Amino acid sequence: MNPLQAVFNIAEICARHGITDVILSPGSRSAPLTLAFARHPAYRGKLRVVPDERAAAFIGLGIAQATRRPVVLVCTSGTAGLNYAPAVAEAFFQQLPLLVLTADRPPEWIDQLDGQTIRQRDLYGAHAKGTFDFPADTSHADAKWHGERLLNEAINLTQTFPAGPVQVNVPLREPFYPKAGEEMSYEQHVKIIRDDHSNTILPPAEILDLRRQLREAGRVLVVAGQQPENPTLTAALYEFAEARQVPVVADTIANLGDVPAVRRQDIFLAGLSKEDKAALRPDLLITFGQSLISKALKLFLRDAAPAQHWHLQPAGEVADTFRRLTRIIRVQPAVFFQQLAVFDTKDYHRDTVPTAAVLKTTDGNGSRGSNPPFSANARVDQQVIAASNPILSAKDEASLTPNATTTKEPGFGAMPTVATEPTLTWQQADAAAAQFLGSFFAAEGQPFNEFSAMRQALAMLPDGTALHLANSMAVRYANILGLPAGRQIDVFANRGTSGIDGCNSTAVGAALAQPARPVVLLTGDVAFFYDRNAFWHNYPTPNLRVVLFNNHGGGIFRLIDGPRQQPELDEFFETHQALTAENLCRDFKLRYLPVASFEELATALPVFFAAESGAAVLEIFTDSKTNASFFEDYRKAVKQAFS
Amino acid sequence: MNPLQAVFNIAEICARHGITDVILSPGSRSAPLTLAFARHPAYRGKLRVVPDERAAAFIGLGIAQATRRPVVLVCTSGTAGLNYAPAVAEAFFQQLPLLVLTADRPPEWIDQLDGQTIRQRDLYGAHAKGTFDFPADTSHADAKWHGERLLNEAINLTQTFPAGPVQVNVPLREPFYPKAGEEMSYEQHVKIIRDDHSNTILPPAEILDLRRQLREAGRVLVVAGQQPENPTLTAALYEFAEARQVPVVADTIANLGDVPAVRRQDIFLAGLSKEDKAALRPDLLITFGQSLISKALKLFLRDAAPAQHWHLQPAGEVADTFRRLTRIIRVQPAVFFQQLAVFDTKDYHRDTVPTAAVLKTTDGNGSRGSNPPFSANARVDQQVIAASNPILSAKDEASLTPNATTTKEPGFGAMPTVATEPTLTWQQADAAAAQFLGSFFAAEGQPFNEFSAMRQALAMLPDGTALHLANSMAVRYANILGLPAGRQIDVFANRGTSGIDGCNSTAVGAALAQPARPVVLLTGDVAFFYDRNAFWHNYPTPNLRVVLFNNHGGGIFRLIDGPRQQPELDEFFETHQALTAENLCRDFKLRYLPVASFEELATALPVFFAAESGAAVLEIFTDSKTNASFFEDYRKAVKQAFS
Repeated sequence: MNPLQAVFNIAEICARHGITDVILSPGSRSAPLTLAFARHPAYRGKLRVVPDERAAAFIGLGIAQATRRPVVLVCTSGTAGLNYAPAVAEAFFQQLPLLVLTADRPPEWIDQLDGQTIRQRDLYGAHAKGTFDFPADTSHADAKWHGERLLNEAINLTQTFPAGPVQVNVPLREPFYPKAGEEMSYEQHVKIIRDDHSNTILPPAEILDLRRQLREAGRVLVVAGQQPENPTLTAALYEFAEARQVPVVADTIANLGDVPAVRRQDIFLAGLSKEDKAALRPDLLITFGQSLISKALKLFLRDAAPAQHWHLQPAGEVADTFRRLTRIIRVQPAVFFQQLAVFDTKDYHRDTVPTAAVLKTTDGNGSRGSNPPFSANARVDQQVIAASNPILSAKDEASLTPNATTTKEPGFGAMPTVATEPTLTWQQADAAAAQFLGSFFAAEGQPFNEFSAMRQALAMLPDGTALHLANSMAVRYANILGLPAGRQIDVFANRGTSGIDGCNSTAVGAALAQPARPVVLLTGDVAFFYDRNAFWHNYPTPNLRVVLFNNHGGGIFRLIDGPRQQPELDEFFETHQALTAENLCRDFKLRYLPVASFEELATALPVFFAAESGAAVLEIFTDSKTNASFFEDYRKAVKQAFS
Repeated sequence: MNPLQAVFNIAEICARHGITDVILSPGSRSAPLTLAFARHPAYRGKLRVVPDERAAAFIGLGIAQATRRPVVLVCTSGTAGLNYAPAVAEAFFQQLPLLVLTADRPPEWIDQLDGQTIRQRDLYGAHAKGTFDFPADTSHADAKWHGERLLNEAINLTQTFPAGPVQVNVPLREPFYPKAGEEMSYEQHVKIIRDDHSNTILPPAEILDLRRQLREAGRVLVVAGQQPENPTLTAALYEFAEARQVPVVADTIANLGDVPAVRRQDIFLAGLSKEDKAALRPDLLITFGQSLISKALKLFLRDAAPAQHWHLQPAGEVADTFRRLTRIIRVQPAVFFQQLAVFDTKDYHRDTVPTAAVLKTTDGNGSRGSNPPFSANARVDQQVIAASNPILSAKDEASLTPNATTTKEPGFGAMPTVATEPTLTWQQADAAAAQFLGSFFAAEGQPFNEFSAMRQALAMLPDGTALHLANSMAVRYANILGLPAGRQIDVFANRGTSGIDGCNSTAVGAALAQPARPVVLLTGDVAFFYDRNAFWHNYPTPNLRVVLFNNHGGGIFRLIDGPRQQPELDEFFETHQALTAENLCRDFKLRYLPVASFEELATALPVFFAAESGAAVLEIFTDSKTNASFFEDYRKAVKQAFS
């Protein structure tokens, strides 16, 4: 048998697992992998070659973000794979499935002073979900089975919750190429192990216990962390919040769509008095998803010190972000909210109401847009919820929860509140913040600055935009400003590690994966120029728009206390950089629209967002000191308005 | 005490160890480290800020290459440190001292969904010499001692042979900044542990044994791997080769200066007949240094299978590059060659001739150029050699080597050779190759191509150039073509991992470290554009010249068998890229000279290399197919000339 047959089969196994996206970076050692994918019918015309591996990996990550399916990365031996490391770490913490195939020399040639040879085993250390060594020699049938088996394991591992990156190191001996005229074939009887993911449900006893606890907990608050758009969850959460009259607080990156959540916490929590904050303090905090952007919210919750903090997460490590974690509930958040939406303990049958009514609020396949990104998840949730609703009699419940005197307890809605005088509610604070923001920006004669410019840009986002928010100021400004309602905007940000290193590339990946959808990146100049190789490839992204806020440096350091008081601010923190995007746009054939005033911006935005504009960069020039003093004015106004 | 005192002391300890170069990348978590270095008198005005950590680390590596002293890298938490990884791996295999200070959150906040938080302990895995965790809290005296001690250990470890990169992870709690007006001080009684490196010498018995073996070995060949310029070694090797009439073979990156070594092995070994190769086959191969470029030489030596292969290396792992390694001699190569230069066993006193005569062939501080890069090493060698020459009587030697019947053995010079008919020698082959090359390029009507263009450029290199050869074709072409003699050119190439990822940055680092010396980088377009952020900083490099061979793709794949026969060559191997350096030069204020013919090149070269030209890019446009067919002609001509 051709000694490369097992390597060719890698492409076959990937195809059988439904993997459609492969990003290659050029190399010699990786040639057999390149050929395996290039010649496979499933990948013909679909492979993408990106020379800079750092960009390649983030492009792959952007595709995985958009599709929620594993993306294959292929690189040659040596430091190529190390250039993947930043994206691999981001994928690990953002829980995105990447299958990283690193070509390598065979083990006997490691550390023998051959070119492009490093120690590739377990290259990503603590930032990969797993690492596998493909056998160097598959002439023995057992070794061939081993290779096929471990590839299946690796693909499956990328997707088991929490999803993440997995490395398969593939040692390759010469010859790397089939002989002239030699046909390459893909074996049709390759081993396939399907890993059908089950969904966790709570045992009836725990459901009853949680219901009781919810009734008894006092003030409940739900806080949503970063998560992709998920209509099933959104619907269940909506019902839960309505039924129990529980406020839901969500940052922009929580993608809660049109759920009437509190979203302006970044504004009002920065200004509220101690007394008002006390009024908002929860007794029970329920969280799900990943990180928050709002530092004000994080600090508030740490300070509020709720008696209980439940986190909903089916599996994996759980962070104690607010230092008050008391209970990990191992279930999909959608299932939890669906099952606990009903609180009337007298009517057990309400618990068994079919979920179809709720799920109808989303469209047929549980998603939206031209590329339904999360339909698979949504369908799973629907089945799970239907299957896991326990039908229990009052007697069952009583027997399972001995301490609960169910009939005597008031429903949550009727519970006496701790303070009877009218106190501030989350919804009131949110409404006040909305009003404040409107009047703050309505003031005449404001200088041109990035905060206002972003507000202007956000207001013009096209319907159905996949909005990418770069680290570090873009995502913070956007979280304060909020998104226009009703436009079905999904928000993405690399908040797994909050790095600036791959923001362009991630957006490029998103644009490639969803060609029929506008993909808009809001970014600052440091992040933008850092990742300029994102555009260095031959694949057009006519749907990509980059709004570049160029203040010629790390303007964030002028906005935060600490560095801005230091004499080293200019040189060592803000680090002035002189670039504009003009030459870069020339290099990469991007339409270039520079603006430096509100009027120019207003004129440019419709042109920029027009579908026929093609890939474009809108460069918004502002002055770092003006930005800082305007943001300082904003902060003072917040303090005045809310304290 | 100020909780940041221990962090400030890091700068003090680095200064006391004589570290002068620090590269910072901007960040918030790293602020205390930034301030510590920015305010320290030893570093005032000397710190450099480079935003892209990948480039920052390679710039640091370029400085370390030039100075042979540790360079400090400082980055913030999160993926910043992962962007250092390619340079860290290169430094590991190229044995260059880097002290990597990664700012981190304190351990309790790892994996708690805070921003810019990854798992930074042991971030570089198998590619760091060591990794240290700075204590998060140094209020206890023991912890403060621990912090100071481990920093000393880390600095020392970067330099113990083989030198390499070391990580110190520095967890930092807020506040990061001194209060307004608060003085920062550096404690003068910080702990300093000096690690005075001893140099290995061989025990007398081993010296005598080696002498005997050398006499009995048959044909001896010395092959030099990559190493920095080292006049002491060069002088000792010269004497050894002269005295024992042993041929020395050296690639360009071996930096053997004017030692009359064989250097055209890449040419003739690719063409010689089996018989001629057999004539060159050594019985004993002696090697030192790191990797070879010449694949022809590597394959020849593997095929030649010498009975013995000695490798000279004071410490560390040793590669069995030619699969025939039989003896590791734990000594500095200079010491070995000095002591074994004399072969006349009758005159023991010749062994004790003072080394001063030899060492005089180098200048006073053992180095050259305006920045003496390797003076420390040279001085050490001198002392060691003087100390380690054993003064032995004939009786001593006889008693130590019982099997040696010393007085009866003939000297090496008088040994009967295996074949008495005249056979090809290395020197003859080298001379023939020199002649061949001259006549090959003298042919009229050759099309403009990168191989010829590089020959033209090499001929014009200024005296004292630090020549940087990028991976992958630039270094190969240059190794075939050789360097102009007598110009004191030192050669650098990232052959530790042979990556293309940091070639520009390394040259930028070299230019910053040696402002009075011309630094010339020869590179291809893929390597050049990959690392374009090398130029994204605010430090002028008027002494830097980049000769960019732009064939719009990975032209190497068209030159090597395998990929060039594949239908996927264009799309998946060569990967056409359309960029030229024009816009980049505009962005970074580099003088730009594009050429596309022999005549234009001839006109441009003197302008380009003129000192007043300032930092410049000479972009040589060639056609990939023309390059491939010209190189194919060259190969055919070699085969014809030598077989």
